[in-house]
Parts: sequence; structure tokens; C-alpha cells
Amino acid sequence: MSSMKMMISRAAASRLLTGATRPADSAERGVTLHRNSFVSVRKMSKALTIDNINPNILKLEYAVRGPLVIRATEIMKELEKGAQKPFKKVIRANIGDAHAMGQKPITFIRQVLACVSLPELIDKGDFPEDVKQRARDLLDACGGGSVGSYSASHGIELIRRHVAEYIARRDGHPCDWNNVCLSSGASTSIKSVLQLFCNDLGGKTSGVMVPIPQYPLYSASLAEYGLQLVSYYLDEASNWGLSVDELERARGAALTAANVRALVVINPGNPTGQVLTRDNIESIIKFAHKHGLFLFADEVYQDNVYAQGSKFYSFKKVMTEMGAPYDELELASFMSVSKGYMGECGLRGGWVELVNVAPDVQANLYKCISAMLCPSVLGQAAVDCVAKPPAPGEPSHALWLREKTAVLDSLKQRAQMIADTFNQMEGFQCNIVQGAMYAFPKITLPPKAIEAANKEGKLPDVFYASRLLEETGISIVPGSGFGQYPGTYHFRTTILPQEPLLREMLDSFKTFHANFSKEFA
Amino acid sequence: MSSMKMMISRAAASRLLTGATRPADSAERGVTLHRNSFVSVRKMSKALTIDNINPNILKLEYAVRGPLVIRATEIMKELEKGAQKPFKKVIRANIGDAHAMGQKPITFIRQVLACVSLPELIDKGDFPEDVKQRARDLLDACGGGSVGSYSASHGIELIRRHVAEYIARRDGHPCDWNNVCLSSGASTSIKSVLQLFCNDLGGKTSGVMVPIPQYPLYSASLAEYGLQLVSYYLDEASNWGLSVDELERARGAALTAANVRALVVINPGNPTGQVLTRDNIESIIKFAHKHGLFLFADEVYQDNVYAQGSKFYSFKKVMTEMGAPYDELELASFMSVSKGYMGECGLRGGWVELVNVAPDVQANLYKCISAMLCPSVLGQAAVDCVAKPPAPGEPSHALWLREKTAVLDSLKQRAQMIADTFNQMEGFQCNIVQGAMYAFPKITLPPKAIEAANKEGKLPDVFYASRLLEETGISIVPGSGFGQYPGTYHFRTTILPQEPLLREMLDSFKTFHANFSKEFA
Repeated sequence: MSSMKMMISRAAASRLLTGATRPADSAERGVTLHRNSFVSVRKMSKALTIDNINPNILKLEYAVRGPLVIRATEIMKELEKGAQKPFKKVIRANIGDAHAMGQKPITFIRQVLACVSLPELIDKGDFPEDVKQRARDLLDACGGGSVGSYSASHGIELIRRHVAEYIARRDGHPCDWNNVCLSSGASTSIKSVLQLFCNDLGGKTSGVMVPIPQYPLYSASLAEYGLQLVSYYLDEASNWGLSVDELERARGAALTAANVRALVVINPGNPTGQVLTRDNIESIIKFAHKHGLFLFADEVYQDNVYAQGSKFYSFKKVMTEMGAPYDELELASFMSVSKGYMGECGLRGGWVELVNVAPDVQANLYKCISAMLCPSVLGQAAVDCVAKPPAPGEPSHALWLREKTAVLDSLKQRAQMIADTFNQMEGFQCNIVQGAMYAFPKITLPPKAIEAANKEGKLPDVFYASRLLEETGISIVPGSGFGQYPGTYHFRTTILPQEPLLREMLDSFKTFHANFSKEFA
Repeated sequence: MSSMKMMISRAAASRLLTGATRPADSAERGVTLHRNSFVSVRKMSKALTIDNINPNILKLEYAVRGPLVIRATEIMKELEKGAQKPFKKVIRANIGDAHAMGQKPITFIRQVLACVSLPELIDKGDFPEDVKQRARDLLDACGGGSVGSYSASHGIELIRRHVAEYIARRDGHPCDWNNVCLSSGASTSIKSVLQLFCNDLGGKTSGVMVPIPQYPLYSASLAEYGLQLVSYYLDEASNWGLSVDELERARGAALTAANVRALVVINPGNPTGQVLTRDNIESIIKFAHKHGLFLFADEVYQDNVYAQGSKFYSFKKVMTEMGAPYDELELASFMSVSKGYMGECGLRGGWVELVNVAPDVQANLYKCISAMLCPSVLGQAAVDCVAKPPAPGEPSHALWLREKTAVLDSLKQRAQMIADTFNQMEGFQCNIVQGAMYAFPKITLPPKAIEAANKEGKLPDVFYASRLLEETGISIVPGSGFGQYPGTYHFRTTILPQEPLLREMLDSFKTFHANFSKEFA
């Protein structure tokens, strides 16, 4: 990983040395650069250089896997090689990766995956009847009875039908399976739908309203596609709720620069952990309708609701029940097998339900994804298990329910423990983690710490998170990676380390913070 | 699927009714359109319409899954519902989908997948020791010992190291694992690298040279990214070889409109089935070097070489052996588990090796893919099995070798059978299928058929393929989906149906062609 550091310093060097922003004579400058720079002298200038690559890619940032996380990986390697540190291991609280933090897979999902991967197990292996039947049904739905066949680009019809049934059960309203499109995790379909908005109508960039703080897939994808990010602030004081006044302000402020065409809402919230009330959802729908916005409902944490009195309402359900004219809103609702109680991030399974999308637009979206052939068929099989879990009375039901409940109960406890602990720490203020998998506390940093950060050329929250990592091995993501109200500092930590590890992490965090506060008092 | 037909006609209707191309007042026009059109009257105009979506998505076409293939799916459904047709089943010869056509999976791959999906099988199940060990090694390399954890965005380090060893063995030259990036099939990484070139340097679009005929992922992705496709024709008369004169001509012709920055070569060829000679590869490398082009070597069919005297040489190997200055060429070489002898399309595993790519460019590519989290970990596990198959002496080696050889021998026979049969048919001319999985014969269509096609508003090759589908159930892709020399007509068929089915298909094809020729004589 030390090569990564070098790359970044070379990139910085390249910009420093050339001092140029215009790409016109880049080949020539490339040569000059290579001759003068501290890296090896090149005989040939490059076809693809930092000066002539896609400028949107340069701008793109994704803090959840950014420089601090790269540094965490380096530290892990240093520890493996026997380096002496004030800690024995890195705790990866930077990413919502449940299994990596010790959560066990749901048995039913894994038994089905084993059987569809190696179909001889269906008859030879010792599996419950519903596992075998599910594997047979899935294989029947695959070309040549193999998960090695391409599926349709929007996914296997059987699974799309099961997803539609799941949505209909969840909401109490019908769902047409033709509007369900399977994907490699939610990220892929979020990007595919976002990309549809690239159109500089009347010479103005299309704008997409995104909450601040936000999950940085949105800022990264908008940068990648050259779309305008239109920030609206979540209200930390009212547990990260959405205020319509703020939505109006944000839209109004963006209008001269952009055609504001879509609104992203993440519920339950990432990184903020709130669960929107039904009333709040209704106001958002009215706002979207009033301004003719397309709604992105990022609902991947729909199973992750912990706080008493909190309940998940899908945007689809609420707008359907609001009736005309709100039930005609264009909506894309995203779901994933990476989160919830299953935490199957590595399998890459997800879906989008498209509601009220113009049929010809939807046909074009399906056409576009067809060039990518299909999402992982094993990921789709996992989606099937999530959309249609073992039903009461079926042999796998009891175990499935026990495992699911245990995961969600434990997450609920951890959600509370982490917020309580932070709120006992001086200078910390942490909203209740009502849902999702993260706490996003606000920290008051002493002026001397901010000064020290400035000296190192770091943002204060990056400085804090960086010190935490180097001194305790705890990997978190600074609030600036998600966006935060100017002058405030936050960080995101997952609630995913299993309980003993989480206690250890919080103890270590407390000690660090006390020392840090003393040092910069 | 009938809804798909309606979508397309609505899109066409939209364009006809409005007659407009400027998107400025699209919302208003949307209303007008809906009031006047034959579809239901809408109360609310759409935020996202065919007139205001990303225009690049409208342009994008991917014939391998285009309208004819959609029609093939409709026909399958009609047959299921008992419709009477002159045939009993659809033969999907449109897509390189080996398992769907009856090819059996490689046992070693599937045993490993079953074990990593359900680790209790490692001890409980009856598996060879090398399968168990591989599963343990892979799980050790996963966070928390689960394939449900995210991996690094460029893939699991252990697997990247195995891929690097595979490439080093293949070429006889070293490969740095840091330059290997795993992906969800080759398509994802091809798109990621192509996207780097989006930069209108000096007001000119970046151009990418693509063979005609080509695999339509290239034309689709270039359209999606707004890059300029610079066509060079393969020479059908010299078995689809690349002529440097033609490369020069194509580049020269494009220079006023585009900065020609990259060259795509597909070897073995898709759809054309040629295997480039070493001499030809050397000339291409010299051409790329002369003009400072970045080389895309699509080498996903590197295991699929059948013809006597043909041999696969990787571009990396040849340029390395050519020495300076050619060994400094920037190269991205793509590979997939979907093709070869494994045919594991549904698992979505692949990789790209980056050679001589500027470190800061590579860091930006890795940053960009990090927002997509990671490729399917089970797909990566399949990559591992392909990069590091059972070695001689290991318990699974004999079976693995037998299965691999059987697949490749059978493909070789089918490659020959299909070209021989086509060459016996009047008006057909088919080059030897030296490699890959396709035949791309040229057909001479009678003038009356061309006239009939024109009357139906269809391209003549689409007309032919469409008649073939409706009358025999054989699904092929018209040459126009890949590009072809003006005035010539071709189609692509896979060589993948298993031998009895392939015989049946060719017999049925012969009868159809005889009738077709008679009808339009």
C-alpha cells in the first residue's frame, strides 16, 4: 500500500510542477513533467495522464474508502509484519460490512447458495426440504439449469416476481414485477437511474437534491456524471429530519445554476441513523410533487429500525395512500441484501422498484443495462431468499426467524450503547440511532486542535479521525466525507462490531478522546 | 413482453407527434403529447421523459440483447402457453452463454463455491482435499471469514496475486499483482477504463478505434460516454486480420473530428473468430506506439483457440518481447470467467491487467471503482479457480483436466462443423472459426429480399434474421449489430449449442435458407 501513497504524492506533484489547468498541450507538458519530477525519467510520454483523463473522475471522492481507510489497511499490514503500535488490531468501523465484523450469515441463504452452486448437493446433502425446493426452483429459472448462465439483464423473472410479492406484502399495495429490476447491490441501480438525468436542458446542468450529510455514493456518482449536486441540510436538532423550508431554500438557491430534477432521500438515514416519520414523508412527497421532481428513495436499511416508536414507511406506500395527485409521483426505490439482518455485502444483490416511470424511459434504462449483461446470478439467488424467506410452517422458518431476530436485537442494543457512550463523552452530542447501521455524533473540537489541523493542512475532523486511527487502530470516517453544516464536526462510525469488540472500541475511544482534549486544551 | 412493444411504439410516437428535437420546453410538450397521443391521458407530466433523458442513452444500442432477442423471449413465452409454431423451441444462438446451451460446469469451481458459501461443508462434505484447502484459503482472505464481506474494490489480494502468477506463467514474463484489478466480468472493467478517456481536449472529443465488426459493448459504451467511435474494418478476405494501412486510414479520417487516443483489439475475435498471428500483433503494437495510443486488448477468449497453427499470444507478451520502445506501451488486457472452458457467465468474474499505466491515473481508476464497493466475492472465488486451477498431482487435477479438455475439444469440433455447413450453403461464405465462440458468415441476399426488407422498414440482415427466428426458432444476431462493410450482410451465431442440438439447428437453418432463397429468387 505504500505505492498508493506515492501515487497520490506524484499526482499532487504533477499539479504543482506544471501549475497548468488547460489540457491543450498536455503531451508536451507530460514530457516536461517527467523530466523534472522526482520519479524515474520516462522515455515515452503517456497517452493517459492526470492532465488528460476524465476530469469528473479527478473530482470524484468516496470517503468510505478514502485515504484514511487506505491508511488503515497499511496499518494492518504493518501490524502483521510485527510493527509495535499502541494497539494490537485495526477496528474497521468505517464501512457497513456486518460479516467482516463477526455477524454470522443466515443459514437458509447459504444453504440455498451451496445447493444452486453444486446441484448434486440437493439430493446428496442433508438439507431441509424447503432449501432443496428453493434451489430446484431457482435452477429451473436459470438457462440450462445453471447459475453459470446469463440471466435477463433486469434479473430472473421468478425472482423479480418474488420481490414484487415482498413489496406488496410490505406496503399492502400491489407491485408489478415488470417494474422490479435486479442489480449488483443497490449502488449499481442508483447509478443507472442517476445517469438518465444527464442532459443539459437549455444549457443548464441537471441538478439532483441530496441530503447533507449524505452517503457519498451520491456525491461520487453526481461528480462522475457531471450532474449538479444540490445540497439540502438535514436538521440535526430535530433528529436529522427533513424540513420543507430547507428543501425549498436549497432548490431555490440552485435554480440559477441548474435544472433541479430529482430528490434523493435516504430512509433510514445513512450516515445519520434517523427513521423518517410518516408525516415527514408526506411533506417530502408534497414538495417533490409541487416541483415535479423524480424521487430517489434509498431504502436499503428498511429492516434496520430499532428505536421505540419508529417505524419504516416506504415512500411507495405513503404516496399510494395519499392518493391523487401524489400517487403519480415518479419514484425509484432501492433495496439491497448487503444491509438489513442478512448483511450479505460480498454477494452483490439488490433491486430497484420503478414507480410511475414513463414506459419509454424505463425501456431505455433496461436497454442501457443490457450491455452489462446481468447481475451476479448468485447475488440474485440471495435476493430471492430475502424477498421470499421461509414461511411459517416450512422447515427452515424457525431457524431463520431466530437468526434474524438475534441479529436485529443485537444491533438495537449496540445502537443504544454507542449513542449512550458518546453522549457521556465531553464535547460529544449524538442523536438516537433510530435505524440503519451508523452513529454520526457531533464533536466540539478545541480551537488548538483546529489550529494544529490547519498546520498539517488537514480538515479538523480528518485530523481527529487520523489521530484516532494512529493511536487506537479505530477506523472511522470524518464527517467531511459525508458533508456537514459549516463549522460543525462529526464522524460516522458503524454500530457493527460485535458487543465485546464494541465495548473495547468505545473504551479505547473514550481514553483517546480524554487525552486528545487534554493535549489541545 | 408485449409491454415492451408498446413502449417502443410510444417512444416512436412521441418523436413523431412532437416532431421536435430541442428539449427546451419539454415539460409543456410532454403535456401536449399526452393529451394527443393514443395512450392514456396523464394528469401529471413526467419529470423524466424520452425528450429530456440522457441523449447518450437513447443512442446506445446493444444488439446481442436487442429487439430480435426480446422477440425470441416473447416466442418462448408463446410456446409455453401452447402457441402453434413451425418449431418446438427457441435455440438461443445469439449470446455466448455456454451453460444455457448445455455445457456442464467445471466441478472444481463449483465445489469450491459450495464450500465458501457454506463453510460447514468443508468438514462435513465429501470433497477432495485441494477443494477444501482452496475454500479455507479463500475464506481466510475474506473479512470475518465470510464471502458476505466486502472485499477491497479491486479485489481480494490473494486472488490478485494468483491472477498475476497465471499471467506470468502464460506469458513467461513477470506480472505485478498491484496492476491486476478484479471486476464483475470483463465488461465492467472495460467500461471503467474507457470512461477515463472522457475529456474534450482542445474542444475535440476523444476517439477510440474499434474494429468493425466489433463486440457491441464497445459501441454501446462509447455512445454512453459520448466518446467518438473510430471504426476500422477487419479484412474479411484475410480471415479478419488487421491491416496497418486500414488502421492508418481510419485514424487519419477521424483526426479532424476527434483526438484519437486509444485502440481496441479483440483477440481471439468476437464476432469474427480469428486468432491474430504474432506478426499481426507486432504490427498493431508498432502502429499504437507510433501514434501514442492506449491499447485495449480484449483477450477474454484466450483459452478458445481451435484451428491448427493458430496460437494465442497476449499483447503483453509480444510487446514485452519486442523490447524498447514498444514495451512501454500503455495496455489494459481484459479476461473473464464467462468464456474459455468454464463458461461461468452468471458468476460475473473477470479482471483487467494494467500495464505501463501512469500511477496517478491508476490510482484515480481505483478510486473511481471504490464507490461501487467491490465485485461479487463469489465471482472472485471463481476467478481464483481459473487463475490457479488444480496443479498436477493434486486430487482434483485429473478431473479438472478431463472436463476442460472435453469442453475445448467439443468446441473445436463444433467450430469446424458450423463453418463447413455454412460454406456448403448457397450464398454463404464463412471464414474458419480459429477461436472464440462465434461464426460470422457473409450472406448474399437476393435483391428481392432486400426490396422486401426495405418495404418493412428493416435492414436486410435484420429482415433475414427475423424471418429465421419466426420460422425456425433460431435466434442469431444480424451483422448490422456488430457493424459490417457497407453493402455486405452477415450474422453472428454462437458455436455453443451441444452437438445434437447444433446438428438440428444447422439442418433447420439449411431448409430455411433454401426456402428463403426460393421465395426471393
